[in-house]
Amino acid sequence: MIRVGVLGSSGYTGGELLRLISAHSQMRIEMLSADRRAGNTVEEVFPHLSDLDLPNFVSLENADYSNLDAIFCCLPHGASQEVIPCLPKNIKIVDLAADFRLKDKNQYAEYYDCEHRAIEFQKQAVYGLTELNRESVSSARLVANPGCYPTGPQLALIPLLVEGQIETNIIIDAKSGVSGAGRELKTSSLYTEVGEGVSAYNIASHRHSPEIDQGLSEAANTQIKVSFTPHLIPMNRGILSTIYLNLTEGTKFTHLRENLLQHYEGEPFVHITSEGVVPNTKMVKGSNKCLIGVFNDRVSNRIIILTAIDNLIKGASGQALQNMNLMFGIPETAGLLQLPLSP
Amino acid sequence: MIRVGVLGSSGYTGGELLRLISAHSQMRIEMLSADRRAGNTVEEVFPHLSDLDLPNFVSLENADYSNLDAIFCCLPHGASQEVIPCLPKNIKIVDLAADFRLKDKNQYAEYYDCEHRAIEFQKQAVYGLTELNRESVSSARLVANPGCYPTGPQLALIPLLVEGQIETNIIIDAKSGVSGAGRELKTSSLYTEVGEGVSAYNIASHRHSPEIDQGLSEAANTQIKVSFTPHLIPMNRGILSTIYLNLTEGTKFTHLRENLLQHYEGEPFVHITSEGVVPNTKMVKGSNKCLIGVFNDRVSNRIIILTAIDNLIKGASGQALQNMNLMFGIPETAGLLQLPLSP
Amino acid sequence: MIRVGVLGSSGYTGGELLRLISAHSQMRIEMLSADRRAGNTVEEVFPHLSDLDLPNFVSLENADYSNLDAIFCCLPHGASQEVIPCLPKNIKIVDLAADFRLKDKNQYAEYYDCEHRAIEFQKQAVYGLTELNRESVSSARLVANPGCYPTGPQLALIPLLVEGQIETNIIIDAKSGVSGAGRELKTSSLYTEVGEGVSAYNIASHRHSPEIDQGLSEAANTQIKVSFTPHLIPMNRGILSTIYLNLTEGTKFTHLRENLLQHYEGEPFVHITSEGVVPNTKMVKGSNKCLIGVFNDRVSNRIIILTAIDNLIKGASGQALQNMNLMFGIPETAGLLQLPLSP
Amino acid sequence: MIRVGVLGSSGYTGGELLRLISAHSQMRIEMLSADRRAGNTVEEVFPHLSDLDLPNFVSLENADYSNLDAIFCCLPHGASQEVIPCLPKNIKIVDLAADFRLKDKNQYAEYYDCEHRAIEFQKQAVYGLTELNRESVSSARLVANPGCYPTGPQLALIPLLVEGQIETNIIIDAKSGVSGAGRELKTSSLYTEVGEGVSAYNIASHRHSPEIDQGLSEAANTQIKVSFTPHLIPMNRGILSTIYLNLTEGTKFTHLRENLLQHYEGEPFVHITSEGVVPNTKMVKGSNKCLIGVFNDRVSNRIIILTAIDNLIKGASGQALQNMNLMFGIPETAGLLQLPLSP
Repeated sequence: MIRVGVLGSSGYTGGELLRLISAHSQMRIEMLSADRRAGNTVEEVFPHLSDLDLPNFVSLENADYSNLDAIFCCLPHGASQEVIPCLPKNIKIVDLAADFRLKDKNQYAEYYDCEHRAIEFQKQAVYGLTELNRESVSSARLVANPGCYPTGPQLALIPLLVEGQIETNIIIDAKSGVSGAGRELKTSSLYTEVGEGVSAYNIASHRHSPEIDQGLSEAANTQIKVSFTPHLIPMNRGILSTIYLNLTEGTKFTHLRENLLQHYEGEPFVHITSEGVVPNTKMVKGSNKCLIGVFNDRVSNRIIILTAIDNLIKGASGQALQNMNLMFGIPETAGLLQLPLSP
Repeated sequence: MIRVGVLGSSGYTGGELLRLISAHSQMRIEMLSADRRAGNTVEEVFPHLSDLDLPNFVSLENADYSNLDAIFCCLPHGASQEVIPCLPKNIKIVDLAADFRLKDKNQYAEYYDCEHRAIEFQKQAVYGLTELNRESVSSARLVANPGCYPTGPQLALIPLLVEGQIETNIIIDAKSGVSGAGRELKTSSLYTEVGEGVSAYNIASHRHSPEIDQGLSEAANTQIKVSFTPHLIPMNRGILSTIYLNLTEGTKFTHLRENLLQHYEGEPFVHITSEGVVPNTKMVKGSNKCLIGVFNDRVSNRIIILTAIDNLIKGASGQALQNMNLMFGIPETAGLLQLPLSP
Repeated sequence: MIRVGVLGSSGYTGGELLRLISAHSQMRIEMLSADRRAGNTVEEVFPHLSDLDLPNFVSLENADYSNLDAIFCCLPHGASQEVIPCLPKNIKIVDLAADFRLKDKNQYAEYYDCEHRAIEFQKQAVYGLTELNRESVSSARLVANPGCYPTGPQLALIPLLVEGQIETNIIIDAKSGVSGAGRELKTSSLYTEVGEGVSAYNIASHRHSPEIDQGLSEAANTQIKVSFTPHLIPMNRGILSTIYLNLTEGTKFTHLRENLLQHYEGEPFVHITSEGVVPNTKMVKGSNKCLIGVFNDRVSNRIIILTAIDNLIKGASGQALQNMNLMFGIPETAGLLQLPLSP
Repeated sequence: MIRVGVLGSSGYTGGELLRLISAHSQMRIEMLSADRRAGNTVEEVFPHLSDLDLPNFVSLENADYSNLDAIFCCLPHGASQEVIPCLPKNIKIVDLAADFRLKDKNQYAEYYDCEHRAIEFQKQAVYGLTELNRESVSSARLVANPGCYPTGPQLALIPLLVEGQIETNIIIDAKSGVSGAGRELKTSSLYTEVGEGVSAYNIASHRHSPEIDQGLSEAANTQIKVSFTPHLIPMNRGILSTIYLNLTEGTKFTHLRENLLQHYEGEPFVHITSEGVVPNTKMVKGSNKCLIGVFNDRVSNRIIILTAIDNLIKGASGQALQNMNLMFGIPETAGLLQLPLSP
């Protein structure tokens, strides 16, 4: 039995980890930290999980690591890089924050308004886009779990860039449910500010942009800078990314589809939709799935790809658990086989 | 392996049965009927379940029962009572329609605008409110699965009526998500007709009223006629029932709570909330749970009880599977242990 | 031109006042206070009202009353009773807070956790349930605007109690959109905590209960204590109240309807729905209307009344403006004739 | 008083016309046709408009045109072109269907699966994008009202193309509320199929694509084919269009903003948002406004423009009334000055 701790566990990604791990036959949660909820029971913080027999929340400074094998870190960026270097060396870590995602410390400083103070750890961190980095994840001690927005587009685009099938002028128009903004108190997350409306935010400046750039550039072996615009949608969960691409000369629509079908053949969580089937976030809600749909545009040589994930699962806690499974050599799908819930 | 067929399986209760049974280690779906979707694949009807390796839908008249052990019948009322009498005798049946719920054929005729034409079968049918009828369900061949609205209030009130703790003037104000209206095309189910609004419907005439009356009257050993008013809420799933009661003389609030706590002690799916915790449908969404909360009103001797269920699970397909598990002598919780999904 | 100031104007009731008064031909907004938004423009606080040519927000202590004829006070309770006694005597005031609604200072202290420190002003305040108190409102200097929940039920029930048509055991089950919780930062108002769920809150203890008691008791000339349970609904605006009543001996359903039809005949904002038409909050959203529907229950001698209002308009800013119109002797409907917006 | 008839008036655009015209001091509705609702009252079809004193619906074949000055035609495409040629010559017409929008009859036939059988009328029809076509509209007898999707993007892009400030490779990613799908019964418009999800539809084939092409091509004086992808959002009203553009050589971001600011200076309904303010459909809901926001992308020389409208008002009935006002020489804003409703 793998003994698990979750740091910063009172938010939505924390709640999802509790839910998923509780259905995992080889992991058991032993410690939960949450500074503002220290002393609270799980029922008080997550009323929907009141059944679970779990320890109460403790403050970070009272966290006891002595009996743990694994830690999921859901602290905010900045805090993550301070805590992780101090954890016992025998503990394997998946960090759901952004601190260890970007290889370029200057880019980190620019986008996250904060110096990186744990560069050495950043170097050993493995980027946990599971399907495309399985081997490195398996042998890692520290995995930087991808951001919610970068997950779908990278899964779709990296195989295409590796094969040189698409040009590098890539536009990603993303639509996210409100849980992506976390459980913090922000006027912009109030029901009344979100319901019955739609808007973009952080235009040209969202923190997930350089993370997407990094993954795509590496795949293309050339510097790519994406156009990435996130939108807030009046729903709880889900990210749909609509991606506009140009084919490289000689490439045809069918080549792309074939490439992706082959690349993800047999994958339990990444699926290319049947021809003509448009991914909808309702098709993945509550599951660890990523759907990818490929479509010809009416403009010649332009392709539209849509990806859909549940931002809290494949975009956060689900992928984190998928990575941890790999790190412990247990089946990658353990605890993650729940089907989507619809309607 | 129990071989299962689902009749009328292209609606929302059908979809939930597919989802739940796919996670069931001792059942396998062998046949799916749906007249209007005959020939379609599961992916075409339920895009979120495209992963499942299941047979295509067939028309009812082409349904082959020869290799089945169990049937879930999701046909509309009226159709159910025509089909079920013709099924092979070795097949166990849970009927999710209303045809076999009411013992009084006149009441059936009055509320469902339709004569009962299978009275004999009605007599052998067992009412499948699992926790309160476990023994009869276990030995039944035909179970009439309760309606979505009657489930929560009956679970809360029957133990209280049996003990004579509450008066019989009972008011039930219920709030349901839109999936309760099914997947049929009705103007009143359009997004634009429901979103950003709330209203009551079928005031004083809803078909679930006599079903509630029947259960409560039997428990109280006297004729009860409830006031039952359903409301439509702009959400997909969930029923919250707010129940207004009067205590019988000598009864105190704590007696009620104690009674319910004892009655449901150890139950996997029915829980009395901690004191002061108000049931919210978000606490049960995606699970087979029924939450019951008991509160003192500001008016003396009046009690307010709230019950919350997921209408498609404990209010339909989940309870149906719970019943079928019992009928086959396998663990009642098989396929039903998914935790609620929130947010 | 009546020169208007709005205190505490950066919340949702403030926004509605700005919107309504801007369409009013005899009022002009001259001053807006909002401590936390002092210095901000209207566009910054209410982006949907960016067109309006209005003064910036000032802090309460910098508010200049010298050129004002009228003040709408949207401060929180407690603050209201401190500010209003200090306003220049020539200014007419509608207070949207709770401070001057309850005649019994002990009840105020009990329900609002706060001593009343302006009893003299409380005595001169007129309760602004416009249709039932028109004369007193017309001659008042200070009007206490009713709470959002008490508005509909009182409009429906007072004429019935005055005529002795209903018993005094009254149950009100209310369903409100989230704007009723205001624009303050509360976890319970986050999109993700509200969306796809429904629950009750403040069971047996909501602050609007004694306000309803007060109005009904006065009408019935006997002490009434209502059972009042508010619920939070995933929508922005609207309150639907489902009211359960018993007829007094000799009274019939048609008597009630006739009474209400006569009582509100010719009223511009209060309407009894056609027989069988169930009020829906979508029928009033964006308007100052109150709809009242009367229905026979299936339980004999029991009546179900439904009332629907837009909580921010007839339940707050619209009724406040209606009162102010009366106080200045201008047409009561001025600025208030917008039709409902649906879908 | 202009006497108005509305054909095909029982849908959402019909309802909006009724609402808007009822607040119009120089128009009066004299006739309403709706085949499926013939004989119904306005209250039966639009419960939120039950106050209005309007004629009942009649079937199209019983429509009496003898006392009308103006007709708004809300019939489906195909029907529109059959009815309009037969209307009395003295009646001015705004057609909200697609029949007279496209100048190229082959394109019409291709996109609308239907031959054009009224080419002569098509030739005299004026395209009613009001702000950019005011003069022609003023003198027209027949105006083809723009589609909901083409309105915002054309208003934003045409001035830029006329000045040669942007390249012609234009990508429009649009997000629409469900009322855009009309009031017809479609599974895809059910609450349960839309709520808590987001998806694209009609990828590369939406009927509004050639309409956008036509307007932009004319402005640029070269053939433009846009990439246009509509998405369905769980909300009732509103369209947000996120538009990705490239600057022509020598053009700077500020040139675009200046151009648009100048172009729409003094316009009552089209506004360029303040720098940094992102248009949100909540800022226009319930109003005839179109907001345009201009943003620099992180990719050099790329610009992101967002436009927001209420699809039922500026995207349909509001713009139709604006056009009709012009056609009768009365103030363009008559009946259209309602402010947005938020939250």
